[in-house]
Amino acid sequence: MTDVILENALIERLARGLPRSPLQVNGLQESDAELVRLPGTSLVLAVKTDCIVEEIESGLYKDPELIGWMAVTVNASDLAAVGAEPLGIVLAETLPPGTGDEFVGALKLGIGAACERYALPVLGGDTNFSAHMQIGGCAIGLIREGPLITRVGCRPGDRLYASGPLGAGSAFAFAELGSGAREAAPGAGVGGASSAAPFRPVARLAEGAIVRRFGSACMDTSDGVLATLDQLLRLNGVGFRVDRPPEELLTRAALVSARAARVPPWMMLAGPHGEFELVFTVPGPRAAAFEDAAAQAGWLPLVLGDVVAEPGVTLAFDGGRGPLDTGAVRNLFAEVAGDVGRYVEGLLRLRPAAQRISQATTPAGTST
Amino acid sequence: MTDVILENALIERLARGLPRSPLQVNGLQESDAELVRLPGTSLVLAVKTDCIVEEIESGLYKDPELIGWMAVTVNASDLAAVGAEPLGIVLAETLPPGTGDEFVGALKLGIGAACERYALPVLGGDTNFSAHMQIGGCAIGLIREGPLITRVGCRPGDRLYASGPLGAGSAFAFAELGSGAREAAPGAGVGGASSAAPFRPVARLAEGAIVRRFGSACMDTSDGVLATLDQLLRLNGVGFRVDRPPEELLTRAALVSARAARVPPWMMLAGPHGEFELVFTVPGPRAAAFEDAAAQAGWLPLVLGDVVAEPGVTLAFDGGRGPLDTGAVRNLFAEVAGDVGRYVEGLLRLRPAAQRISQATTPAGTST
Repeated sequence: MTDVILENALIERLARGLPRSPLQVNGLQESDAELVRLPGTSLVLAVKTDCIVEEIESGLYKDPELIGWMAVTVNASDLAAVGAEPLGIVLAETLPPGTGDEFVGALKLGIGAACERYALPVLGGDTNFSAHMQIGGCAIGLIREGPLITRVGCRPGDRLYASGPLGAGSAFAFAELGSGAREAAPGAGVGGASSAAPFRPVARLAEGAIVRRFGSACMDTSDGVLATLDQLLRLNGVGFRVDRPPEELLTRAALVSARAARVPPWMMLAGPHGEFELVFTVPGPRAAAFEDAAAQAGWLPLVLGDVVAEPGVTLAFDGGRGPLDTGAVRNLFAEVAGDVGRYVEGLLRLRPAAQRISQATTPAGTST
Repeated sequence: MTDVILENALIERLARGLPRSPLQVNGLQESDAELVRLPGTSLVLAVKTDCIVEEIESGLYKDPELIGWMAVTVNASDLAAVGAEPLGIVLAETLPPGTGDEFVGALKLGIGAACERYALPVLGGDTNFSAHMQIGGCAIGLIREGPLITRVGCRPGDRLYASGPLGAGSAFAFAELGSGAREAAPGAGVGGASSAAPFRPVARLAEGAIVRRFGSACMDTSDGVLATLDQLLRLNGVGFRVDRPPEELLTRAALVSARAARVPPWMMLAGPHGEFELVFTVPGPRAAAFEDAAAQAGWLPLVLGDVVAEPGVTLAFDGGRGPLDTGAVRNLFAEVAGDVGRYVEGLLRLRPAAQRISQATTPAGTST
């Protein structure tokens, strides 16, 4: 198992030694949103800042409406992961000088639609000008009562869930940036993947509020499913056994995308551009009550498998199971400097660690 | 008086139509920090996001320690302007790939020093990579009791104050970017201005807490003194009569800088790079009690003049007084696209509107 996660090491390097708050519930990297007890009350504030930078620079996000939607959604999704009630968001927009009305209008359409969807009002913002656009925000949420949930707290025996089918973020990235990826995959088709409906992941705020009542740990999949599992297992000193085969975990679009690109379905869980679902754990004794509460709310969570004592992630496939070095998957994208073709090549090289999984998935298309 | 302020029009254009919160106390542009009532409590949350972008791109901020200090200070200063108690800050850092340890170390030194100074802990953050660096943050503060203060609420008859001597921000900008400015000023000396001590403006948190108890309106001078007065007069439908001559309002460094650059002292109030003092108003009947409370805290506020019914700003000089079109001053920097030399030329052209002021100040050096 890979020891050092480059992103975690960077965060440590940037944050180590800076003053922390005695009111803060979570330690560094231990929660999707920072949790702060408000003195003299039983309230806990949830605070999260997240910015859309690389997604714009790499050309992954070109549509201004998508950029606006995502600037709100990435922050709302972190409120969802701690089950907080949305209070508001401030926006930080860096726009190229002379940005036209059409672009601004579409950007605002996306921001406004997301804010309406999440009942997350815009409190204010800051606007700056630079040739390099970036759009960020800081979302504020409130937890008025009940238990808190962070990334830390799961134990062997807990059940592992996702809030919904996975892989939409990878499918979108394949469709937008995937020509290199399709070339890198042996025997890849020329059709490639194209997304019919626009990519609009939804922050799982209502689901997160239920998870907080029953769950033991929760994190959103903003960096992809395998990165999420990897971060959770490191923080909790546990492992995850994913019992259901990857093709049963994917959205239809993600399955289609994997087939078109002729990559094994598990690769749709590996991309660093996530789907903004929640991955979470519920202690066994509370699982039935949790599933009842979810059903009452009209929500069917996706059972992934179980928390186990042995570190690492094992994936299921065709009745078999194999380990995958999720740490190596996480570091790979940084190591190839974001080159999608080299990323897919690298993932294919990681397959030996998941032998029994990959055997039947390459060439693809035979398993589902 | 100039009717349309380009920056305000931009903010309207970006914010109009986006969902707002019924819990928010202030309207758009009405407060340095957004004020949100926390449901079920008497608490008010203060939230502000501000990013260092143009200051880095223009070369004004080169020292990473200064960049770190300012990323915290610009946000803390807005908490000061609403008299909020600091709760924490989240940082949004966009760094060039491969940023070295020395740079990161100095950046953190600046961030850490400011956070310690303001008792403003770092709650978390987001890090991204781009060739174009920018460092921002979102500060959260709390108001537990007592009156609220925003930019709105002053009336004719109120007294006008600054939290301390002014012009340090302009002096710094002249020293860093001012060669063009010195060429533009007629008869300018060749010595120019250089700052002996590093530029480290301090957010006036303790002062802001006192101002909130007695004041009627408050705003920080992050965009310069004249821009601050202009914004306040537009929001309040009033005018300001500044009774003390500009040279009595400036820091020693700002006076030296004006003399070295041979520009009239009032120009040190005009620069769009501010000094992060507070400009605020106190109703006449509360002025004595306010000054007593300030003195008890070891603080001597600077009396600028009075709030008057007639719109616009008048500045005092050598026993005379003249109007200055502060709206035109604000728009000028955008109109010259940030060119410091053309900016100074433009300011000199605005002097006719303040004739009796500028007569004696050009050529400079004769007035103080």
